[in-house]
Amino acid sequence: MFKTNEYFEGEVMSIGFNPEKGPATIGVMAVGEYEFGTSQKEFMTVTSGKMLVKLPGTDQWKDFKENETFIVEANEKFQVNVKEEISYICFYK
Amino acid sequence: MFKTNEYFEGEVMSIGFNPEKGPATIGVMAVGEYEFGTSQKEFMTVTSGKMLVKLPGTDQWKDFKENETFIVEANEKFQVNVKEEISYICFYK
Repeated sequence: MFKTNEYFEGEVMSIGFNPEKGPATIGVMAVGEYEFGTSQKEFMTVTSGKMLVKLPGTDQWKDFKENETFIVEANEKFQVNVKEEISYICFYK
Repeated sequence: MFKTNEYFEGEVMSIGFNPEKGPATIGVMAVGEYEFGTSQKEFMTVTSGKMLVKLPGTDQWKDFKENETFIVEANEKFQVNVKEEISYICFYK
């Protein structure tokens, strides 16, 4: 029914689903620093905790907390720095 | 690292994690009607979509949308009616 994905040896785990707003994943991240690549435009919202994000084209870490969203275009890379276990929801366009 | 759980033959799937606010799960539900039992007090927040919930001691369905939370005491049962795939986050106290 639902598909789970693991990244970074299970330090990041997600479940894909299809709400009315379009394809999405929910996921959790362990403490650590990760780099992700996008294949579609991503709208990522923190659902618990906070994380530092270095968006494409910047060299500054920016804080994103619960209910805050950042957007990454397709075919870009972004880095996150997670200091407590966090959860997120990501929509793909 | 993270543990996934499946309920109702995979129609409901969750991932457990440990944010600073205390033990939690994120999860998704397929379209359907489900009854859950609690072993701890649960604080459940819809993170996408909406669902109908029949809380313990009531016989009325109540709508919960994105960012809305309902609370269920330990050792209670509650029913949900899901008309689109939804996601939630649940904290346990």
